[in-house]
Amino acid sequence: MSTPRPRRRSRTTATGAALLALAALLLDSAAALAAAKTAPPPRAQTTAEVLAASSPSDWRALDPERTLYLELPAGRVIIELAPVFAPHHVENVVALAREQYFDGLAIMRAQDNYVVQWGDPDGKKPLQKAQRTLPAEFERPLRGLTVTRLTDPDTYAPLVGFIGGFPVAADPLIGRAWLVHCYGMVGAGRDNDVDSGGGTELYVVIGQAPRHLDRNVTLLGRVVRGMELLSVMPRGSGALGFYEQPAERTPLRTLRVAADLPEAERTALEVLKTDTATFSAYVEARRNRHEEWFKVPAGRIDVCNVPLPARDAKVRQR
Amino acid sequence: MSTPRPRRRSRTTATGAALLALAALLLDSAAALAAAKTAPPPRAQTTAEVLAASSPSDWRALDPERTLYLELPAGRVIIELAPVFAPHHVENVVALAREQYFDGLAIMRAQDNYVVQWGDPDGKKPLQKAQRTLPAEFERPLRGLTVTRLTDPDTYAPLVGFIGGFPVAADPLIGRAWLVHCYGMVGAGRDNDVDSGGGTELYVVIGQAPRHLDRNVTLLGRVVRGMELLSVMPRGSGALGFYEQPAERTPLRTLRVAADLPEAERTALEVLKTDTATFSAYVEARRNRHEEWFKVPAGRIDVCNVPLPARDAKVRQR
Repeated sequence: MSTPRPRRRSRTTATGAALLALAALLLDSAAALAAAKTAPPPRAQTTAEVLAASSPSDWRALDPERTLYLELPAGRVIIELAPVFAPHHVENVVALAREQYFDGLAIMRAQDNYVVQWGDPDGKKPLQKAQRTLPAEFERPLRGLTVTRLTDPDTYAPLVGFIGGFPVAADPLIGRAWLVHCYGMVGAGRDNDVDSGGGTELYVVIGQAPRHLDRNVTLLGRVVRGMELLSVMPRGSGALGFYEQPAERTPLRTLRVAADLPEAERTALEVLKTDTATFSAYVEARRNRHEEWFKVPAGRIDVCNVPLPARDAKVRQR
Repeated sequence: MSTPRPRRRSRTTATGAALLALAALLLDSAAALAAAKTAPPPRAQTTAEVLAASSPSDWRALDPERTLYLELPAGRVIIELAPVFAPHHVENVVALAREQYFDGLAIMRAQDNYVVQWGDPDGKKPLQKAQRTLPAEFERPLRGLTVTRLTDPDTYAPLVGFIGGFPVAADPLIGRAWLVHCYGMVGAGRDNDVDSGGGTELYVVIGQAPRHLDRNVTLLGRVVRGMELLSVMPRGSGALGFYEQPAERTPLRTLRVAADLPEAERTALEVLKTDTATFSAYVEARRNRHEEWFKVPAGRIDVCNVPLPARDAKVRQR
């Protein structure tokens, strides 16, 4: 896995690189000493090294009953659903997919640095067993949840971390937990009435985490693969990024539950389990980068700056 | 100015809306009481109301000597430079623009949720007076700077806020300040050597703020208008999002200093001054949203979740 950084294409000389690596090591040592007062000393690994050293048991396959394939003209977007946080919305979106509600509908909104949204532009497509609206599932009891907690301070919530691959926040004082609006998170658009969502319109976060939406709208999943197909949608020129002309919309070919496709047509994906030592090492490797390019380790990480590693299961397991 | 939110297109009934507005008011009152212990009580205004109530003196025109126009096939991207933080890089990028260095070069990298980058794919275009590399300008002394500080806790830095429209962070203990990698910030790509940047390759942040880059690379400006032209660039399939085929690149028509264009060809833009009471009210209106759609105010705001308002000067000043 490559480490992203705004680098030039050329390369330094070997001598320069060696000197810089030495300088980076010295900086890292100082940072490690400082960090040791409050946390275990960081393992000086890069994210690539952490993942390369992972074991098969650090990974889990996506549950095909809780995985959606959104088929766009440009390709497949894979969404993992979050029944732990939005059980009724997940059930309803699965029902919508099974009655082929989304097939032939469209991406009708793309607002820069915010969301891309799809649904029925005309609002006329009939439903069969699925519901048009549901009671809000903005948050749930913290009780019964085990959070892989981040020690880093968060601007918005008293506690942040991960559960089952999802970024979460919680307030232990009031005993509530909720999903966080990080890049790639999928939610159910709603009107002003809190119970006016339900999943017939879905949005995905395409910019800086709009954390002010947390606890204001039901999140129900996240994009595991294919964000680059959604994030490049031309931005709409209408209010809130809605397209003003129908021709500007991108049609949805289908939206299907993975389990409903023949196995040969499924994408065999694995994601890193977030309750493992490997995930904690991955977070630490992102908190303090040890790739040669980095000179000053951040020492901290935002809950929305930990993209969950995913890989092709068939390729890696050979 | 409309307030973005993942809403459905339909509208609630007037009765439902009134009840919800009442509920929102009750929530807001509780939040205001809690906030009153540490800060002045929030003014219950929406961002639109704050901006509508602004006075002409709350706004400033962009300095044409410190404004760049990046002309893409799809239109103009307007960049404000940050000489307070990167004086030599700004001077060099202005020199590059004046010798028309970027004209005919290309966007050669687009990495999802990270950066779009442009420069010379072949690395062969000769320079005239401009420099190819410069000493790093990752940070500067805090002394002499007046920060419009955010009271909200930040994950990464002891102090965050705004100076002259730019998001900044600082560490008073070591007396250093630096620009923050928020959405739309523009920086100078570099190789592993810290002094290997200079501005011949420029990148812009297109996703979740990559704060781990702060103090690791020279930021020199920000996109004030036209981000939606850069953020939709097809993502490159090569390592780090580089395009693998030259045909995938988007050509740069020109990159010019605004002052070098006839006045009729300039875009007359104004941005909100960040050292004004109006800006503070705008931040507060984003911290605790009072639009009817919002039910639970966040109470906090991230330094990268405060996009700086910009408007057409000629239209508004009539």
